[in-house]
Amino acid sequence: MLVGPGDDAAVWQPPDGRALVLTQDALVEGVDFHRGWTTPFLLGRRCLAVSLSDLAAMGAAPAWCMVTLCAPGDTAVGDVEELHAGLLAMAAESACPVVGGDVSAIDGPLVLDVVAGGSVDPARVLRRDAGRVGDLLVVTGVLGRAAAGLRLLRAGADASPAAGAAWRRAQLDPVPRLGEGLALAELGVRCAGDLSDGLLVDARRTADACGCAAELWRDAVPVDAELRTAFTDDWPALALGGGEDFELLAAVGAERLDGLRRDWPAGLARLTVVGRLVEGSGLRLLDRDGGAELALPPVASRHFGS
Amino acid sequence: MLVGPGDDAAVWQPPDGRALVLTQDALVEGVDFHRGWTTPFLLGRRCLAVSLSDLAAMGAAPAWCMVTLCAPGDTAVGDVEELHAGLLAMAAESACPVVGGDVSAIDGPLVLDVVAGGSVDPARVLRRDAGRVGDLLVVTGVLGRAAAGLRLLRAGADASPAAGAAWRRAQLDPVPRLGEGLALAELGVRCAGDLSDGLLVDARRTADACGCAAELWRDAVPVDAELRTAFTDDWPALALGGGEDFELLAAVGAERLDGLRRDWPAGLARLTVVGRLVEGSGLRLLDRDGGAELALPPVASRHFGS
Repeated sequence: MLVGPGDDAAVWQPPDGRALVLTQDALVEGVDFHRGWTTPFLLGRRCLAVSLSDLAAMGAAPAWCMVTLCAPGDTAVGDVEELHAGLLAMAAESACPVVGGDVSAIDGPLVLDVVAGGSVDPARVLRRDAGRVGDLLVVTGVLGRAAAGLRLLRAGADASPAAGAAWRRAQLDPVPRLGEGLALAELGVRCAGDLSDGLLVDARRTADACGCAAELWRDAVPVDAELRTAFTDDWPALALGGGEDFELLAAVGAERLDGLRRDWPAGLARLTVVGRLVEGSGLRLLDRDGGAELALPPVASRHFGS
Repeated sequence: MLVGPGDDAAVWQPPDGRALVLTQDALVEGVDFHRGWTTPFLLGRRCLAVSLSDLAAMGAAPAWCMVTLCAPGDTAVGDVEELHAGLLAMAAESACPVVGGDVSAIDGPLVLDVVAGGSVDPARVLRRDAGRVGDLLVVTGVLGRAAAGLRLLRAGADASPAAGAAWRRAQLDPVPRLGEGLALAELGVRCAGDLSDGLLVDARRTADACGCAAELWRDAVPVDAELRTAFTDDWPALALGGGEDFELLAAVGAERLDGLRRDWPAGLARLTVVGRLVEGSGLRLLDRDGGAELALPPVASRHFGS
C-alpha cells in the first residue's frame, strides 16, 4: 500500500498490467449467522473468507480488504477483539491485508460488510459467461458438507454423526479456493464461478450467463460417503441444493480436461466432472451422464433466517 | 470496467501509472440518520457523497463504487427504488458508476455501507501527514451549515430561520468537494483531509499526523452571516466543533498561497486561511492571527444517536 490505514483513504497501485477484482459481501446476524452457533474468532475468519471465495472465482490473487463492523452497544470488547483476531488470521493466511473500513454503533444486530480486492491478468479472468455448449462442468472438492453442518447446527449438537464436526466446520470456517482459482486461470480455463448458493443455483447461473442450458449428473457429484449414509433420503438436497461450500464450478472444453487433470497442482482440492453445458436453457438433473432425468431437489435457503 | 455487475466480482484496471484510492463508510439508521428527517432519494445521494468526500480529500478522481444495503423486512419497495435512484444520481454526477455490492435482509435498522474507489497520480496524493510547521491551514467553502441544519432538524422545522432550508440541505445533501480536491493536487498542495468530523477534530488530526500543533483563528473561519446571527452564543460550536460539512482542510506552504489563489479555478468553493501549523502538539484556538487564546468550543457529536 502507498498509503495505509489512518488517512482519509487507502492508496494502492496494482502491479503493471494487472487489473483489480472487486467484491463486497455483508454478513448480518440473524440472517447469515447466529452468534450462539459460532465464535467471534470464526466469524471474523468467515466474513473475509466469503469475499475471498469471490476473488478465487475470478482467478484473482488477493491484494487487500476493508471491513465495516456495525456492533450493538452490548457487544463485549473481548468479542470485538476476537472477531478482529479472526479477521487478521484469515487476512494473513490469504495475503490480503486489512487496509481500511469503518466501525459504527447500531441499535440492532451485528453487521459485517467486507470488500476484498485482488489482482488478475485481464486476459485470464475467470468469467461466468465464458462457457460454451459442450463444455464439461467441473467442481472442486466435495459438496454438501456446509449444508450438512448447518442442518446439524439447527438440530443441536447431539444429533451429530461422527463426521459432524467436520461438516460444522465447513459451515463455520469455510476455506476459500484461492489456489484452485489461480490454477484454473493459469491452466487456460476461462469460465468459473463459486458455489456460494449451491450447485443447482450456481450451475443455472453459469448456464444463463453462457446463453445455454446445464445438465448435472447426480451420481457424479462428489459427496462424503458418511453424508450419503447420514442423510439417506435427502443428501442430494444438501449436496446439490445446499450452498456455502464455497467450492468452485468451472466450465471446461472437453479437449482440455485431460491436460487440466495432468497439470493440476498437488495439494489442491481435486476436480470432478459433474455435468455439461448443453443446447437450450435452464437446468436438468440426470442420474448419470446419459441417464434418466430426475426431479430437482429443493434448493436450501442460503440464509439461516429465511 | 472489464467485468461489471453480474459476475462473482467486478474487474477494473486503473489507467497506466495511476494508483487506486479506497474508502469505506457506513451510514446506520438511528446513528447517522433518521428516516423521518430525510427522504430515501437524499439518503441514497448522501451515502455515496460521504465516501466521495474521502476521495476528494486524497486528490483522487472517482472511478467506481459498491454499496451494501441491509434493509428491514418492512422497508417499502418504493423507498428502496428511491434510495437507489438517489445513489445513481450522485454516481452519475460524480462519474462514479456502481459496479457491485450486496443486498441483505436485517432484523434491525437500515444500513448502507459504501466503498468508493478513485484513481490518482501516486506523486500527487493529498496526505494528512504531509504538512510542515509554518504551513497555513486553508479550508474550502463555509463551515457550520451542516451542523446548523442538524440543530434545526432536531428542533423541528418551525424553529427555522430564513437560511434554514440551505442549512438543512447542507446536512442532508452534502456536496463532495471533488473539483477542489483535484485542483489542490494539481496546484502542488500535498497535505489535505476532509472536514467530516469538524474543524477542531480534523485540524487536530492533521497536526497529529504531521507531528506538530495547529492553531486556529476563530474570526477567520468562514461562516454565513445569518448563522452568526441565528446562533449568537454558540456559532463557534457549529462552525468549528460541528462536522459533516465535508469541506476540505489543506496545509499549504505560505510561499505557495498567492499562486494557489491566483490559479484556483473559477466556480470552485473559495479558499480561506483559518490557521497555521506550529511547533508543539495539540490544538490552540486564538481569536485571530496573533490574537488571544480562547477556550475550545465543544465538539458536536458526529452521530445523531450519540
